[in-house]
Amino acid sequence: MFDLKNYIQKKSHVVNDALKLLLQNSQQDQTINKAMEYSLMAGGKRIRPVLCLAATEAVGGNPNDALTAACAMELIHTYSLIHDDLPAMDNDKLRRGKPTCHVAFDEATAVLAGDALLTMAFEILASVPFEKTDQAAKWLQIIRIIAVAAGSRGMIQGQMLDIAAEGRRLNVSELESMHTLKTGALIVASLQCGALLADADKDQLRFLKTYAGYIGLAFQVADDILNVEGNPEVMGKAVGTDRLNKKNTYPSLLGLDASKQFAQKLIRQALQALEIFDNKADPLRALATYIIERKR
Amino acid sequence: MFDLKNYIQKKSHVVNDALKLLLQNSQQDQTINKAMEYSLMAGGKRIRPVLCLAATEAVGGNPNDALTAACAMELIHTYSLIHDDLPAMDNDKLRRGKPTCHVAFDEATAVLAGDALLTMAFEILASVPFEKTDQAAKWLQIIRIIAVAAGSRGMIQGQMLDIAAEGRRLNVSELESMHTLKTGALIVASLQCGALLADADKDQLRFLKTYAGYIGLAFQVADDILNVEGNPEVMGKAVGTDRLNKKNTYPSLLGLDASKQFAQKLIRQALQALEIFDNKADPLRALATYIIERKR
Repeated sequence: MFDLKNYIQKKSHVVNDALKLLLQNSQQDQTINKAMEYSLMAGGKRIRPVLCLAATEAVGGNPNDALTAACAMELIHTYSLIHDDLPAMDNDKLRRGKPTCHVAFDEATAVLAGDALLTMAFEILASVPFEKTDQAAKWLQIIRIIAVAAGSRGMIQGQMLDIAAEGRRLNVSELESMHTLKTGALIVASLQCGALLADADKDQLRFLKTYAGYIGLAFQVADDILNVEGNPEVMGKAVGTDRLNKKNTYPSLLGLDASKQFAQKLIRQALQALEIFDNKADPLRALATYIIERKR
Repeated sequence: MFDLKNYIQKKSHVVNDALKLLLQNSQQDQTINKAMEYSLMAGGKRIRPVLCLAATEAVGGNPNDALTAACAMELIHTYSLIHDDLPAMDNDKLRRGKPTCHVAFDEATAVLAGDALLTMAFEILASVPFEKTDQAAKWLQIIRIIAVAAGSRGMIQGQMLDIAAEGRRLNVSELESMHTLKTGALIVASLQCGALLADADKDQLRFLKTYAGYIGLAFQVADDILNVEGNPEVMGKAVGTDRLNKKNTYPSLLGLDASKQFAQKLIRQALQALEIFDNKADPLRALATYIIERKR
């Protein structure tokens, strides 16, 4: 039996150490750096970096080669949370039991801290030392993939759709499009970059992107389900808020049971996409199941 | 006599065409793209792209090779204006006589349009086609330079200092530090990238960065002077607002005459830095003078 808890702990630890080092290399005594660190070190689950590193391992690569890409994913994810939490967007006061960035600092600082984390992601991706010149071309490819996933045709478009959906009833297909862009794009990019940095072949890349698409959506369905029947003490946040805020969720559209079945089906499809891989993909297999069985 | 007006017109035209093409390659019918286009095509002077292309020419390069870098500078400059104009920052309702992005659209869209323009800058820099693999390493260097200039040790830190200075009296050295970061860093990066893309040697790079530092500061001093004695009809905006808002400016610290002398001195120093260059640097020479003689 694969010990996923231990795997996630070890990988998160490596990612956290790398992120801390990145922050130390900036001017620590400045407010902007404090705000960046506050949100970056607020106890995120590090799902995207772990998926990135696990993809590298699945194709037989060395996860160290993908560590910078993994960190970039977390920087971009954190920036998107800071901006999504702003009063003009979701106006969230708490995240993981702690005041959001604009509450802990102020709104201007939160906007700029998000901007700085996004910019830092590209700075670190362009600063990886390499020995052979053909590796430079690969890092450009990584930057392009991440920028497209995070940009106006990806994550940002997803957030626009989310805002536009407020107070309006979406159908299942619209809900799926929104999530595919808002959270799916960056998860697919995480797997894709991890695989590319281990020189994955075309088939491996294709199947890992398929896997990523399924688990990205399953992650969101599971989040929606947790908001209905999760334990607030375990989750560190209130439940039932989606229904209260009349948010478009899978349980509200499909019902709770059908949502659970849908999540199960997505995970089966994700696992099928991994069939061409050997036991080096066991972390990815375990992560797929974890995504819908997690309690927070 | 070098015809600068014609030069700026031609270069701006090339940059505007390239920017329009970039926008067309995204999904045009989406609100996010409309907001991006609205601010990007709002009649900016294109100073940074023109400086970038002129730097390439000064060292004997082909300005086409630097066009993507020039566009990236304008994308980043525009994103910074959108975010600076937000209610939580400068709360500006008008820019160049047109409603600011958050007024024309809404605040959430403005935050995201800024995010998208910043992300797009890195996407296009990582997407330049190249023939030789050593060019890939150069584009990574360009991305790194731009990210550092725009990030938490550059432009963003300058904006933080600007916000922190509100209602507080700065001394000349603090004012200079703030401008060096807030506007200077991206102007230096514009020249540096233009020069690097033309394979400038170490001396050429050093002198162009020196030139950029002086004109960047002179640009700000000239802006402050125009806010005192400019013609509102020519400028398309009100004057006297800095004094009204008790902003830290060169005229408020040094007086008007001393500020003019300071601007003149900076331009003399900028021109001195160009002494090693032949007449291919004439556009840069003319631009230096233009920066303090412009009426808007």
